[in-house]
Amino acid sequence: MLYMVNKAKSVNKALDEAVPLCEPALKIRESMRYTLLSGGKRVRPMLCLAACELVGGQESTAMPTACAVEMLHASSLIQDDLPCMDDDNLRRGKPTNHKVYGEDISVLTADALIALAVKKMAASTSLGVPPERVLQAILEMTKALATEGLVAGQAADLAGEAVAGAIVGGGSDEEIERLRMYARCIGLMFQVVDDVLDVTKSSEELGKTAGKDLVAGKLTYPRFMGVEKSKEYAEKLNVEAREHLQGFDSQKVAPLLSLADYIVNRQN
Amino acid sequence: MLYMVNKAKSVNKALDEAVPLCEPALKIRESMRYTLLSGGKRVRPMLCLAACELVGGQESTAMPTACAVEMLHASSLIQDDLPCMDDDNLRRGKPTNHKVYGEDISVLTADALIALAVKKMAASTSLGVPPERVLQAILEMTKALATEGLVAGQAADLAGEAVAGAIVGGGSDEEIERLRMYARCIGLMFQVVDDVLDVTKSSEELGKTAGKDLVAGKLTYPRFMGVEKSKEYAEKLNVEAREHLQGFDSQKVAPLLSLADYIVNRQN
Repeated sequence: MLYMVNKAKSVNKALDEAVPLCEPALKIRESMRYTLLSGGKRVRPMLCLAACELVGGQESTAMPTACAVEMLHASSLIQDDLPCMDDDNLRRGKPTNHKVYGEDISVLTADALIALAVKKMAASTSLGVPPERVLQAILEMTKALATEGLVAGQAADLAGEAVAGAIVGGGSDEEIERLRMYARCIGLMFQVVDDVLDVTKSSEELGKTAGKDLVAGKLTYPRFMGVEKSKEYAEKLNVEAREHLQGFDSQKVAPLLSLADYIVNRQN
Repeated sequence: MLYMVNKAKSVNKALDEAVPLCEPALKIRESMRYTLLSGGKRVRPMLCLAACELVGGQESTAMPTACAVEMLHASSLIQDDLPCMDDDNLRRGKPTNHKVYGEDISVLTADALIALAVKKMAASTSLGVPPERVLQAILEMTKALATEGLVAGQAADLAGEAVAGAIVGGGSDEEIERLRMYARCIGLMFQVVDDVLDVTKSSEELGKTAGKDLVAGKLTYPRFMGVEKSKEYAEKLNVEAREHLQGFDSQKVAPLLSLADYIVNRQN
């Protein structure tokens, strides 16, 4: 857990520096910072950094990619909360972006975050990442935005995050693919736990509107297999996730194992 | 003009093939095609192809980039027309995207177009474009999405389109910068002419809502300097645009000169 706390701190610092509050577009920058620095769990960037380190890369090499990961995530959160999408008022215990800045600014903010994410990743070449690897990582990251991502969007897809980290970290094809499998497991696990929390916790405990899935009539895991079976399924996914990481250096793999434990045990 | 008609045909064919109507996400693909293949002028992709050829590249090398250019443009049109932005019902003589598919699908479509644009460009490496040039071109293209682009957004920015074409075409730094200056001139020219058409033409003639700028109280060129002076300014920009192209091969430069003439003389 100390690893995670430290990583989250480094990520928050890098994100803070990535969007300085200055002209031009001060209002957009304010809005970007509002969502980007609103204290998310930083699971995605952490996963990216840990994947990079697992294959022998440095934290600093993957930091721009980790920031890009969080920017793309923030962009999707802003969009998801829009009145024409989920129409949500609360996110991470605070009013959603469009409630504060208005829908027009929110739409522009989401774009600006995507553009900044691509820019950040492209800048990785200055850290010694070969351009073909940077391109490959950008492709992985934008997949979640694409047609395929929208359909598979039911389960939180964390594969891009892990894979992009492993790519910029210099991982082999086999290492990258094993991390993809691991990340798919914890992504699915994240979704199962999210569905369970949605029906078992209050809005206050979650920091976002609880019971939404029920109201929306969404087919969730608890609805499909009940709360207890869902929890068992999440545990099973945790075991499978660990299996994909067998054979990696035991010290470097520790953060990814505890990240999986954290996801399966999280309470909000 | 024959050059332009032929290029538009090739671009339309490539765009048609880029978004096949199939699962997954059939609805999103329909919506992408609706805006992407709605018969725009194809000024942007044409500019990209002509810039590539001007510096000695092949049309085929820049075609994925030209398609990406049009995808990013289509994405921005969809967003601009949303109720929370310009709230427009008519685009290119047809109902706007959200009027046909709903706002939620429109927002997802805009994202999917951005993702596909990046994917298309990244695929240029298979056509022999060095990865560092592809990265550079992606950066140029996403600038328009970014904070800077939003602010400078008053004038249609065509620099990214021309520069990206020249980059993938293998242009030298000097050639790329001269094309940037040329494209800034015709971008500004495009905006001036657009403002003039907005006050002098009917919605029917334009294929989009006329008189919008006046209603929105926007500071336009005609409002600032009158219609006649605006037309003179556009002509002056045309002369300046041509100056930036002096010294290039006279045959290869012809399409860019006629593109500038086309923009300054267009009636819708």
